[in-house]
Order: sequence, then structure tokens, then C-alpha cells
Amino acid sequence: MSGSIKAIVYQAHGKPEKVLHLEAEELRPVGENEALVRLLAAPINPADLNAIEGKYPVRPELPATPGFEGAGVVEEVGAAVRNVAAGAQVILPHDLGTWREAAVIAAGKLIVAPNEIAGEQAAMLKINPLTAWRMLHDFVRLEPGDWVIQNAANSAAGRAVIQIARELGYRTVNVVRRPELIEELRAEGGDVVLLDGDDLREAAAEATERALIRLGLNAVGGESALRLAKIVAPEATIVTYGAMSLKPLTLPNGLLIFKNLRFTGFWVNKWYELATAAERDQTFERLFDLARRGLLQTKIERSYPLGEFSEAVARAAEGKRAGKILFRATP
Amino acid sequence: MSGSIKAIVYQAHGKPEKVLHLEAEELRPVGENEALVRLLAAPINPADLNAIEGKYPVRPELPATPGFEGAGVVEEVGAAVRNVAAGAQVILPHDLGTWREAAVIAAGKLIVAPNEIAGEQAAMLKINPLTAWRMLHDFVRLEPGDWVIQNAANSAAGRAVIQIARELGYRTVNVVRRPELIEELRAEGGDVVLLDGDDLREAAAEATERALIRLGLNAVGGESALRLAKIVAPEATIVTYGAMSLKPLTLPNGLLIFKNLRFTGFWVNKWYELATAAERDQTFERLFDLARRGLLQTKIERSYPLGEFSEAVARAAEGKRAGKILFRATP
Repeated sequence: MSGSIKAIVYQAHGKPEKVLHLEAEELRPVGENEALVRLLAAPINPADLNAIEGKYPVRPELPATPGFEGAGVVEEVGAAVRNVAAGAQVILPHDLGTWREAAVIAAGKLIVAPNEIAGEQAAMLKINPLTAWRMLHDFVRLEPGDWVIQNAANSAAGRAVIQIARELGYRTVNVVRRPELIEELRAEGGDVVLLDGDDLREAAAEATERALIRLGLNAVGGESALRLAKIVAPEATIVTYGAMSLKPLTLPNGLLIFKNLRFTGFWVNKWYELATAAERDQTFERLFDLARRGLLQTKIERSYPLGEFSEAVARAAEGKRAGKILFRATP
Repeated sequence: MSGSIKAIVYQAHGKPEKVLHLEAEELRPVGENEALVRLLAAPINPADLNAIEGKYPVRPELPATPGFEGAGVVEEVGAAVRNVAAGAQVILPHDLGTWREAAVIAAGKLIVAPNEIAGEQAAMLKINPLTAWRMLHDFVRLEPGDWVIQNAANSAAGRAVIQIARELGYRTVNVVRRPELIEELRAEGGDVVLLDGDDLREAAAEATERALIRLGLNAVGGESALRLAKIVAPEATIVTYGAMSLKPLTLPNGLLIFKNLRFTGFWVNKWYELATAAERDQTFERLFDLARRGLLQTKIERSYPLGEFSEAVARAAEGKRAGKILFRATP
């Protein structure tokens, strides 16, 4: 790898297809605490597109390279680096801008991922599976056998919730909008999979034998979130981590005052920033363990070389896909 | 006091003026762990009217006597009673139905209130000042100098928040709808009093020198609650304890995901049920201390004898009053 690499860059916020460019960038020499990492894969997540459009709550200094997650291979490390070595597969931090061929980066920001995990899958552990893991740990103290309810069960995070909950002994009520997903999500380990709609409450009560559900995970908003709030037990917590419907949460005051629900949110990039290295490592250790056993596999529709970014972002912005769109290493 | 007393009773839920009656009731003999208490005063709270109408989340067995709070004097105690003695002023529990001349009640449910506190004021400590006290303690760990923001600052609970916050060294931003309240609430100890409206956010930022406000208290709902949510700091908690606007809380998902606000509620009757005797006593001790020093005085428009309940409830249901409507002991 030469000192010059290609990276996707934008100078101003706007529609991705208008503002993105592929540019040559000079890599700086590897400092004593740094590593040179060559990209293996980086997905296109909805948050990436929002960030490019300037609709993300944190705006990078421009020009910037998009990409909140990705995985690479270490090519070279500085003299003082101990945590990674050349040849290691690593997960990249969310503030790098992963849509690039390579980067020189502080080695302390890298997470070593076992080489048995495919690069494309390693590249997609840091947002959705990590979100799922933290949401199942950080809000309600659950015991084996306890129920969790989620909408957006078919999303990458939702599928990770199903698999991680099963691993931890929790049971899941999974709410989807399309009937053909019911069998599919049951096969992934969903204990109960239900169609969203007006009779969801009764269906959930029946399927769980009226269990008290103390944790709800919401990535839809609007009516769907309100239905979760009506289903969960008094004192339950609803964690919002996405807003696919683009509709706000409308809460009758009684759900707060009398049912005493707690509504809060989870933002994985914020968690990542505030976590200690030990907290990150411990979480990834468990995710790697699951991934090595064939779990937490995110479906992929197609990987594109960086040069085909126009097609890639256009496809990623479309609704019905067979899986994620990624950038892959340019051969 | 004879064995027969008068009590307000309703047999069916409905408009208070239609369903309430004054009835004679036989008092049972005082058991060994019981006390006979003669009513001094019992306010008419909005929750009482909601309960009569069947709009309260807990419905009593009917027929029932309304009244979630009140104070009385102990006339007689059973042989085994140690916590109260004849002559003591006591605060009545919320599940008694306080709109009655007297009651025989488990002595353990009574809270002794110092006789220096006027009966009418003692009768109004259990809902609003107690709500204010708990909301300032149970949600966010505040330090002296910290700011709290509340709407409904002119309500009985809102005024108690102002006084208790001042006592504890916290500073308050108080949001009101009528300009004539600004000076009045400042005189009560409100550090900042602002008119609700579109420029509230900027006004609050200026008045607090852009302090990070970590606790918001909402008794209005709707737009007003949303304005509080936009003003408070990231990670702040908004506690909802009332819904004067009768409008739901509408929350843009970003306030949950990215700003990581926590929305929860407080219901004083529930707190009262779940609290231990020691927790209740400790809270009342502090409220009594404040009341003895002339604080936590709720404004009273008029006290009515039980027999004039029709006028009393009609007046209590009206908007613009000079203070609370109470029932008083029939002479």
C-alpha cells in the first residue's frame, strides 16, 4: 500500500449522490502509537446517510469521510503499540470515517476481532449487535425466562436482539409488519412473532400467558411505540433507538403518571464514546463469541468497491432490499 | 360524637353534582388497634372529582366516600394503640374517603401532625407538598445551586416545589401562563419566573446563564412539556405528575435517542402505598418542619360544611379560584 489511498469525501452536506466524491488522500507516516489499517468492509447504515445530509445530531468538520463502522486488517504498527499487531483483523471506531481504502489511526481505538469472523460480519458488529447487547443489559435487570418486546424485529438490531436474548435466556415478543417474516424470525429464535396492528395487545397477552413485560425496545416511533407502551407492565422501561416511521412518540400522560412507564433512549455512538476500554472489550468479547458460533450474521445484499459509491448509496437508500449494502476492499 | 355520623357517598360513577349524597353511617366500635378520628378539614382535589366520575385509574368498590386527603383529631384509641393518643392532630390515609365527619380507622395508617399546624393546612400536605418533596429527591441527584424547571408553577404542587427547592438550595425556573403571577411567584422564592411560549427556551437560557438543567417537572403535557424537554440538558429527567392541558406528550424521537432524555411519572398515592412507615414519617417530618415555619401554606378560597357539598364541588370544578375548596368539620 502506497502513501496515497482513495477515500469517499464530502465538502458540504446534501443528498449523498450529489455531494460524495472519491478523492486521493495522502496517508501520514505511522506514529509510534498508531497503526496503518487497510479496509476490509464498511456497511452503509441509515445513520451514515443522515450524517451526509446534515440530519445527524453531530456534524463532522468538513470535508469529511462518511462511515460509522467497518473492519480492516492491520498492515503496520508503531513502535509503542502493544494491543494490536500486523495481520490482526480490527473493528474501526465510529469517528474515523470508514469509507476509505486505509487509515492511519491511534492503535488504542482499534478492537481486535478474531480472524475466524468474516470481515464483512466483523464490520457490522459495532452498531446493531452492540446496540442489542447494551439495550438488554443497561436498562432493566432481567432474569432468565423474562420477556422483552420489540418492534422493528426484522431490522439488523432486532435480529440481534432475538439472538442475544435467546443466548441470555430471555424470551422475546417480536413485532413485524409483514406476515412472511413470522416464520423467518421464529427460525432465528424469536419466541413469539406477531403482526403489528390493533389487536397486538391481546395477541401478546395470549402468547405470553399475560406475562409482565418489563422492557420494550422501540425503533419505529408513532403508533407502534404507543402499542408497545400499552402492552408492557407498569413500571416498565421503553428504550427508543430508532424512528423508522419518522413519527414522534405520542404518550397519553396517564402512561407516565399512573402506569409509571419510563421512556428513554439508546444511541450506540454515544455509548461507545463514554464507555471505558474495558467495557468495550467485555461487550465485544461476548459478541465475538456469538459470531464465532455462527450467530449475529447480518444479511448482505451486495458489496461494492468504493469507486461504485453512487450505485451503492442509491441502493442503500431504497426500501426493500435482501440485506445490507457494504463497501469492500478495492482489490 | 355519637355512633352515627354523616358522610358523602356515591353509589355510581358520574358527575359529582348528580351522584353525591350525604348519608348517615354507623361508626363501628373502636377496635384495639384502631382510632376514632373526627374530621377537621378535607380538600377537594382534581383527583377526587376524577375518581367520582370514574376517570381515575383505580376505582373504589361502590358505594364509596370520596376524598384522598384530610386531617382530623383523634377522639379515642383502642387499648393496643401506641402511635397516637386522643387529642392528636392526624393526617388521614388516601384510601379512607375523607369527606366524612369521622371514621374508625387502623391507627397505624395515621400520621401525627404537630398541633401548631392549622388543620386546613395539615389536611393539604399529603398530596401536593409531598409530591413536590419526592420529585425533588427521587429522580435526579441534585446538588445545592442546581437548577430545576417546572411548568404549572402556580399550582399547589408547583408552589411547594418552589419553597422546598429553595429550602434545599436548588434554584427554580418557573413557567406560568399569566404575567401577573411573575411577581407573586418570585415573592414565594422562585428564582426565575417566565411566561410560557415560543421564546421560553431562549429566556430560560439567558436567565440561568445557560445552566445545565437536569430535572424538569411537568404537570401540563402537550406543547408545554415539549418546551421543557427542549430546554433541559442532555440526559435530563422529565417527571410528569399532571396533565392540565389534557394533551398527550409528543416527543420527537431524537430527544430520546440522541439527547437521551428520560421521561417518567410520579403518582403520589402510589408512592404512599409503596412507602414504608419510616419513609413516610421522614418525609412528613420535613414537611411539618417547613409548615411550622410558615411555609407550604396552600391558599384557601373557602371551606364548606359537608352538607353544602353541591356548592363545594361545583366551585371546586371551576377554573379561576382564589385558592382551594375544602370541607370543614360540621360544628
